[in-house]
Amino acid sequence: MTKIVISGTGVYTPPNTITNDELVDSYNDYCNKFNAANADAIDRGEMTAKQHSSTAFIEKASGVKQRYMMNKSGATNPDVMATELSDLAGSDLSDPSVSSQMAVAAAKKAMDKAGVTPDEIDLLIFSSSIWERFVPSIAVEIQRDLGTKGYAFDMAMGCSSATFGMSTAMDSMLSGMANKALVITCEYITPAMNYTDRDSHFIFGDACVAMVLEREAESKAPVQFRIKTRELFTELSYNIAAMFGSRVLMEPHKIMDEDQRFMQNGRTVFKELLPLVIGMVQKHLDSNNYSVADMRRMWLHQANVNMNTFAVKKLTGTDQDQDTAPIILDEYANTAGAGCMIAFDKYHQDFKEGELGLICSFGASYSIGCMIVERV
Amino acid sequence: MTKIVISGTGVYTPPNTITNDELVDSYNDYCNKFNAANADAIDRGEMTAKQHSSTAFIEKASGVKQRYMMNKSGATNPDVMATELSDLAGSDLSDPSVSSQMAVAAAKKAMDKAGVTPDEIDLLIFSSSIWERFVPSIAVEIQRDLGTKGYAFDMAMGCSSATFGMSTAMDSMLSGMANKALVITCEYITPAMNYTDRDSHFIFGDACVAMVLEREAESKAPVQFRIKTRELFTELSYNIAAMFGSRVLMEPHKIMDEDQRFMQNGRTVFKELLPLVIGMVQKHLDSNNYSVADMRRMWLHQANVNMNTFAVKKLTGTDQDQDTAPIILDEYANTAGAGCMIAFDKYHQDFKEGELGLICSFGASYSIGCMIVERV
Repeated sequence: MTKIVISGTGVYTPPNTITNDELVDSYNDYCNKFNAANADAIDRGEMTAKQHSSTAFIEKASGVKQRYMMNKSGATNPDVMATELSDLAGSDLSDPSVSSQMAVAAAKKAMDKAGVTPDEIDLLIFSSSIWERFVPSIAVEIQRDLGTKGYAFDMAMGCSSATFGMSTAMDSMLSGMANKALVITCEYITPAMNYTDRDSHFIFGDACVAMVLEREAESKAPVQFRIKTRELFTELSYNIAAMFGSRVLMEPHKIMDEDQRFMQNGRTVFKELLPLVIGMVQKHLDSNNYSVADMRRMWLHQANVNMNTFAVKKLTGTDQDQDTAPIILDEYANTAGAGCMIAFDKYHQDFKEGELGLICSFGASYSIGCMIVERV
Repeated sequence: MTKIVISGTGVYTPPNTITNDELVDSYNDYCNKFNAANADAIDRGEMTAKQHSSTAFIEKASGVKQRYMMNKSGATNPDVMATELSDLAGSDLSDPSVSSQMAVAAAKKAMDKAGVTPDEIDLLIFSSSIWERFVPSIAVEIQRDLGTKGYAFDMAMGCSSATFGMSTAMDSMLSGMANKALVITCEYITPAMNYTDRDSHFIFGDACVAMVLEREAESKAPVQFRIKTRELFTELSYNIAAMFGSRVLMEPHKIMDEDQRFMQNGRTVFKELLPLVIGMVQKHLDSNNYSVADMRRMWLHQANVNMNTFAVKKLTGTDQDQDTAPIILDEYANTAGAGCMIAFDKYHQDFKEGELGLICSFGASYSIGCMIVERV
């Protein structure tokens, strides 16, 4: 059986850091303005006053301390409260999308680490939660800008976009349709954030991660992780949702409505999704004759530190630490599909030959993706 | 080597027919109103008067005689000139998307023909040009509504969405990740049409096609087509494009702009894309030791009758006819990724065991997908 390895990863981190304090300042200013503008209605009990947020609340609720954004001007302006265009955004259709530029930067790092050149890649998958543009394909734009060969396409599976993308690329490599693949999870996702919602205005950050997949027998990469097992699962939930899509072309007056942007019922997600994740990881380990103790590390989805500490405790019986299950969401916030692979990118160099780790994404749709990898 | 068959297909055809005459009437009314409202500027030479369209022009330019739409009220109203919401559209996020409902109808027909039940399907791919919603996944919504198992995800490759979707599903079946797959190309695409553009207001129609893929050794379907070969290709072009995507969340005032909707440089596409398609088909046949004469039929992409007649003449030396290369775009218009498989769905029952056919999609991004299939 042909063995497939992750032979290189790369992360593109946007240029702008935005702290909780900055975000809370603009949110609270927005609340003050809203409450002042609606003071009479609030006094008459016809409207509810908007409640201030705080850095302490955000950190307790999520563990997020800051995030990166392609542009932070709108997010820090109480009169805008929306992500504004990046400086990288062109004005013409034929200017590369911002996502393509983020992807190219991440992909170059991943290919450098793998020691592969663009002309060796014959499959490129852009697998990301939400897309800057539908047509032409962003994957094909990246293909043009990198100079990769073969074919490319776009896919999406919310917070499991990277794991689903890698598994799909691996299938195409195993079938013989592709030889070397580049999978890119570009989460340019803050444009879909609702900055006026106290429960969610802090959750996302922009980032892009790229992975090179090769046949083990062919790879010359100094650091390789063999994909030993994988399992994908989906089951519908509307508890993480954004209505945005072509429907808004039929209701253009709704483009600024709250439901076009991300909302989540965080507590329900916690209650419903975590048992599914823990059950699936345990079953996946069992059915492959592993125990959790065989895993040197878990690179978990990075949405909320409380989910990760809960999952680690349930799975291992011990407390989460950076060695067992590294957290990167304190710095990056929730980067949707990219999170687990950003964690992998930053925490894998210390692995010794034969050591095993578990990649596990979980989130919107719902979706779960599990992979056991082994340092070659 | 495991052999994969297409064991069932199904088409959902929207309830509303709209003829060229109807579309031309509303377009010409719109022109009259536009020209009257801007008469002074037109007289002063500061604006160009809008030119009327005609049924004769549309038929000559494209071969399209009518199309189906989920809702035709806006398209026939010169004061609206946009697709309006379907009656199937709910008001809440938790109401199934219109696309899901179209997909379920097509998928049931495909599963009936294949003789498979939803619980036998363990991979569902929604592969469509443009999506009604990003999160949660439309594929997972269809999975819930049909009751299929395993996992599901969304992908896109413009006019090659069905061929790329089937090839990707086949990869996952060959690798062992999936056993039976359902691929759905739901082109609810008229919302992205620009009804005020004389060159493109007539090109699209809504439709959905579904395909069941099974292992040949397992399939009990009365009619099966083995996928013998396949090849996918992409190369960037902006000549078929729509800016629509999450970028508009950062420029909400642009939601009604023309560049959010489909535009195409038809002549350039004809000149650039057709030689690529013809070259790829010839090379694909050659490298698999076939000649075009071995193909009983070609199910080509359905964008424009002139492209198909040109391709058929170049490839076979003879004129296109319904037996050699059936046209369905006269009835359905351009249904983007669905076209070639709608043609397949309607024109395959007469195949005898051992007869071969070629499926070939081509269009936006650019993308080309070729498959040689054999009646089992």
